[in-house]
Amino acid sequence: MSLFTIAVHGGAGTIRKEDMSPEMEIAYKQGLQHALEVGYAVLSAKGSAVDAVQAAVVSLEDNILFNAGRGSVFGKDGKHEMDAAIMDGSNLAAGAVAAVTSVRNPVKLARAIMAESPHVMLSGAGALEFAKLKGLVLEDESYFYSPFRFRQWQQIKGTDETALDHDVKLTDHAAGKAAAEKKFGTVGAVATDMNGNIAAATSTGGMTNKQWGRIGDSPIIGAGTYANNQTCAISCTGHGEPFIRAVTAYDVSCLMEYKGLTLEQAMQLVVHDKLLKIDGEGGMIGVDAQGNASMVFNSEGMYRGVKNSKGLNNVLIYREA
Amino acid sequence: MSLFTIAVHGGAGTIRKEDMSPEMEIAYKQGLQHALEVGYAVLSAKGSAVDAVQAAVVSLEDNILFNAGRGSVFGKDGKHEMDAAIMDGSNLAAGAVAAVTSVRNPVKLARAIMAESPHVMLSGAGALEFAKLKGLVLEDESYFYSPFRFRQWQQIKGTDETALDHDVKLTDHAAGKAAAEKKFGTVGAVATDMNGNIAAATSTGGMTNKQWGRIGDSPIIGAGTYANNQTCAISCTGHGEPFIRAVTAYDVSCLMEYKGLTLEQAMQLVVHDKLLKIDGEGGMIGVDAQGNASMVFNSEGMYRGVKNSKGLNNVLIYREA
Repeated sequence: MSLFTIAVHGGAGTIRKEDMSPEMEIAYKQGLQHALEVGYAVLSAKGSAVDAVQAAVVSLEDNILFNAGRGSVFGKDGKHEMDAAIMDGSNLAAGAVAAVTSVRNPVKLARAIMAESPHVMLSGAGALEFAKLKGLVLEDESYFYSPFRFRQWQQIKGTDETALDHDVKLTDHAAGKAAAEKKFGTVGAVATDMNGNIAAATSTGGMTNKQWGRIGDSPIIGAGTYANNQTCAISCTGHGEPFIRAVTAYDVSCLMEYKGLTLEQAMQLVVHDKLLKIDGEGGMIGVDAQGNASMVFNSEGMYRGVKNSKGLNNVLIYREA
Repeated sequence: MSLFTIAVHGGAGTIRKEDMSPEMEIAYKQGLQHALEVGYAVLSAKGSAVDAVQAAVVSLEDNILFNAGRGSVFGKDGKHEMDAAIMDGSNLAAGAVAAVTSVRNPVKLARAIMAESPHVMLSGAGALEFAKLKGLVLEDESYFYSPFRFRQWQQIKGTDETALDHDVKLTDHAAGKAAAEKKFGTVGAVATDMNGNIAAATSTGGMTNKQWGRIGDSPIIGAGTYANNQTCAISCTGHGEPFIRAVTAYDVSCLMEYKGLTLEQAMQLVVHDKLLKIDGEGGMIGVDAQGNASMVFNSEGMYRGVKNSKGLNNVLIYREA
């Protein structure tokens, strides 16, 4: 039995201790810990890595604090358009959904696309149609409503500006102080199971006041999400456009496969060198088939956590020495 | 002044000489030659690689023989949903559009997204809205109508089957004999300009009877399209799903950057080894900054052509010894 591991993230960006209330810090950490627990429970019950990452991401999608599923930001027309992807490193199977509305758990839709369609990526109204066909739970707009997200949107609607989740100042809102700083709202999980299989999943509500059906890196296999037992499972969070241009997640895999770098070395090189050269702010979490985990970011903070079968349990927000 | 080169493709698949009428063979070759000429004209007038690939792809989009732009296949609801991408290897700028309707030249929309939006990828109705904002030429359904494509669709509409362009038998149609065989309908171009800058562009009408907003590899940066002056510019054509899972175009780039393979070596390895292992049928065209070009496929044929400033001019369809 090999070491099994789960890691999760809840977004990266300008997240500073001095801007965070103690209550919010606790709430974010509890959310991350809960995601770790549900993912870990799958792994310790001999479940697969792909089931574990799905369970962890569902937990974060259901938590209104994070920009995915229930907590998704408002798009330009007041709707919530969500993206998600999942990939199974044992067979390179993948599923992804872009610009879908109404689906309670977009990561479950990505899983259904992987498992029950001949396709990898579906989008828009067609993806919703597929979700209905597969009996996925749908929600109306009130489910996705939060006063905080609504105020974010009200501040920039009517303009052509977009905001990367918490990039909107919300000085009038108690919970908003920390969140008001620049943050890239995405959630994700990576896991190594007892059999040494690995998987990755990512989900996001995108950018506040998003328009034109913009698709970020999260649902792009190779950019925001990638998994391959031979190398690594990666879930990214950051400014989506540079992450797409850098083919970020697969770049880590190639540096391991073709240059022999370790997971940690490859993630450090991509996040602190290659991404920075094209103004790619954000970070990523990763695991390999041996159960090693790494969490690397070039922004001020990243909501993140890791738990493994050797007893490691860490939930972190800021940079730590 | 370095060697300048343009290569184009018009799809790959089961394309056999014995199934092709002499007239159709001439028509396909003329279409490919025309695309080479317009791309080459840009390069020889000291134009950029990105302008050259756009011009070549526009020429193929405007040609009803190829499954892109005007010749796009019918989707499930009788509409034409198109995907395209373009990438500039000199600065890693990229633009892509997925599941857009009505736009005469989706590659021009991808270019506008790259040049005039803060985003890399737009989709669906939102992408059409952006196209209108930028004044791109729109067409009604009659522009995209061809009796041949309509009959393809009629043969499988009402079912849940999809067909990869010419995968539908059309024994009653003179032009259909060659095209009736399995073929992956996509067009693309790659180019090296006088300054040693390279670029890639890809455009497609997807699969006949396509549903659920399916997105293939063509508009995915790293999968169907990629360009980086340090390595290569690649445009793929094939069964989109395995090409997405293999992050095909960027894999060629990584094999060159991290393992030191030549363009030709990297393309051979990806097409004949890595793609085949996951049933990835199709091919790709590529150039590097020195003006070397390569065209590699694992299917029976690929509509393709290459032209360079040393006088090379080749237009091919089948496997050649």
